[in-house]
Amino acid sequence: MKVWELGEFGLIELIAETVGKAKRHDLVVGIGDDTAAWRVDKSIQLGTTDILIQNVHFTLDIATWRELGWKALAVNISDIAAMGGTPSFAMVSLGLPPETEVDNVVELYRGMKEIASKFDVDIVGGNISRAPVVIIDVSLIGKASGPLLTRSAAAPGDQIAVTGYLGLSAAGLKILKSKRKLDSKTIAFFREAHLRPHPKVAEGQVLVQHGVKAAIDLSDGLLGDLTHICKASRVGARVWMNKLPIHPLLKSAFKKESLRLALSGGEDYELLFTARSEIIAKLKDIMSSPVTVIGEIIGDEQGQVTLLDTQDKAVKWDETGWDHFKSPGLTKQ
Amino acid sequence: MKVWELGEFGLIELIAETVGKAKRHDLVVGIGDDTAAWRVDKSIQLGTTDILIQNVHFTLDIATWRELGWKALAVNISDIAAMGGTPSFAMVSLGLPPETEVDNVVELYRGMKEIASKFDVDIVGGNISRAPVVIIDVSLIGKASGPLLTRSAAAPGDQIAVTGYLGLSAAGLKILKSKRKLDSKTIAFFREAHLRPHPKVAEGQVLVQHGVKAAIDLSDGLLGDLTHICKASRVGARVWMNKLPIHPLLKSAFKKESLRLALSGGEDYELLFTARSEIIAKLKDIMSSPVTVIGEIIGDEQGQVTLLDTQDKAVKWDETGWDHFKSPGLTKQ
Repeated sequence: MKVWELGEFGLIELIAETVGKAKRHDLVVGIGDDTAAWRVDKSIQLGTTDILIQNVHFTLDIATWRELGWKALAVNISDIAAMGGTPSFAMVSLGLPPETEVDNVVELYRGMKEIASKFDVDIVGGNISRAPVVIIDVSLIGKASGPLLTRSAAAPGDQIAVTGYLGLSAAGLKILKSKRKLDSKTIAFFREAHLRPHPKVAEGQVLVQHGVKAAIDLSDGLLGDLTHICKASRVGARVWMNKLPIHPLLKSAFKKESLRLALSGGEDYELLFTARSEIIAKLKDIMSSPVTVIGEIIGDEQGQVTLLDTQDKAVKWDETGWDHFKSPGLTKQ
Repeated sequence: MKVWELGEFGLIELIAETVGKAKRHDLVVGIGDDTAAWRVDKSIQLGTTDILIQNVHFTLDIATWRELGWKALAVNISDIAAMGGTPSFAMVSLGLPPETEVDNVVELYRGMKEIASKFDVDIVGGNISRAPVVIIDVSLIGKASGPLLTRSAAAPGDQIAVTGYLGLSAAGLKILKSKRKLDSKTIAFFREAHLRPHPKVAEGQVLVQHGVKAAIDLSDGLLGDLTHICKASRVGARVWMNKLPIHPLLKSAFKKESLRLALSGGEDYELLFTARSEIIAKLKDIMSSPVTVIGEIIGDEQGQVTLLDTQDKAVKWDETGWDHFKSPGLTKQ
């Protein structure tokens, strides 16, 4: 069997089986969450790694090198945010074709440095290799400042909520690829959404402080990431389609397609979380990002996400989230 | 300017400049050593990342998937060993062509798992992507059990010593590529040296316990790695060519070429260290691996390694170590 036949998530399950149970007593969270977590003295350290590969995750005709640097670090910071942690140290494995311009490499690191400074992260090591395409693999260490947010803590009766808006990054990619004629302000807005995501570290901290237990960052798309929560927590989810936070600019630029982008478009790097309604009501008051309730967690239909229309009727929906080996596209969307 | 014109080490210097000074107070060792190191409560954590890229670091006609798994983790464990630490948690970024056989991926993880178990390491996370070639990037966390070994602590008057033998891995690669006719036991010996290196974690611990301060693991080749120590410590080195530990099997299989392999062949993953002669004399008594004194650290000729013949005359030598963008070969050697 080939990996494209098994798919990304089947392969991850098989790898987890092969690796087997963790043995170290200082491990707190292993394979299957946004980051790993382990104890050091009285503290919890977090670790995550995420890679960007040219012509798989990005193309150089769309992104500048500085934007790539920003994004490579941003996607990792977002994983730390989704655990309720703060990022601290980054290491970078860089693969470069020998013909790469040195100036571009400097721009790449300027982009990383820019977001690193913003989040109090130091770039502390890494390595450089010759490679057939550009490869940027960032490993990021963080620490937990309180209890962890995990994918496995959603409980029946929880409301499901998201920060910010859905589908903007995927819309941005579409616009950048198609070179659609839109006014320059709108293009800049979508370009920023796709290439300079702002990880929700402060928001993750607020969630922890207010007793939220379950969260994930939106990288594979709402339906995909909510399915990850449902599987890890052994619960089901009902999502009200008319409640999804769709930005007015997305609606006006993409009309009907905006719903598909909001449900399945990936890489928004917002936080998706679940908690009791009274906690979420409080969060809506105090968070600077918009917080939108989009559904509820149920005890049955474990591992399933059901979409409901305005009459609470289940809607059939074919696409779920991004699968690295099954999805046909060149990049996530 | 292209990166191949600047070369790997020029590029690393430029990147370190772009990244600038670290700002976090909990950082202990940043860019430029075998691992980064940072404080957590009363402990020191170590972090390193090293990548294997198909047709750059390995080819699939030579290595089995299980050997690749072993090696991908081994090269990172070796970095932790070179700091005097013990490894704890690994994360894996894996890039795979969609046509890859699932069974091969399982074998890869079996190889990682095999060495992980040996060194009390848990594989705790990672990610999988589509990629044009096989990419295995391991990030490894470790902890320091005492003072750190660093590249920058060599002092004039120190002796220079290595554990084990030099050049076996590069010889192994040559044999595997050429399919030279050697008896099967000899081939197995060199294959093991190249594809299943045994990182010197216990040896690194013993070095720390006996007061050694300066070390590096041999990945770029003796001359390259000793130059790293000389530059970081702002000292010079004199190496006695007739003292190099060359294994009898290397001598008999490679005759005169064995000297070049010992000096410039990379990926031995032995420890190269410097210390006062009385410390090294003690270590020779108690270490289970052979320890060989091969030279001495001097105060002048900073950043330079000088090779000496039996009459203590300087020998001209063109090759140094491995440079990822300047070296012509397909893989290190």
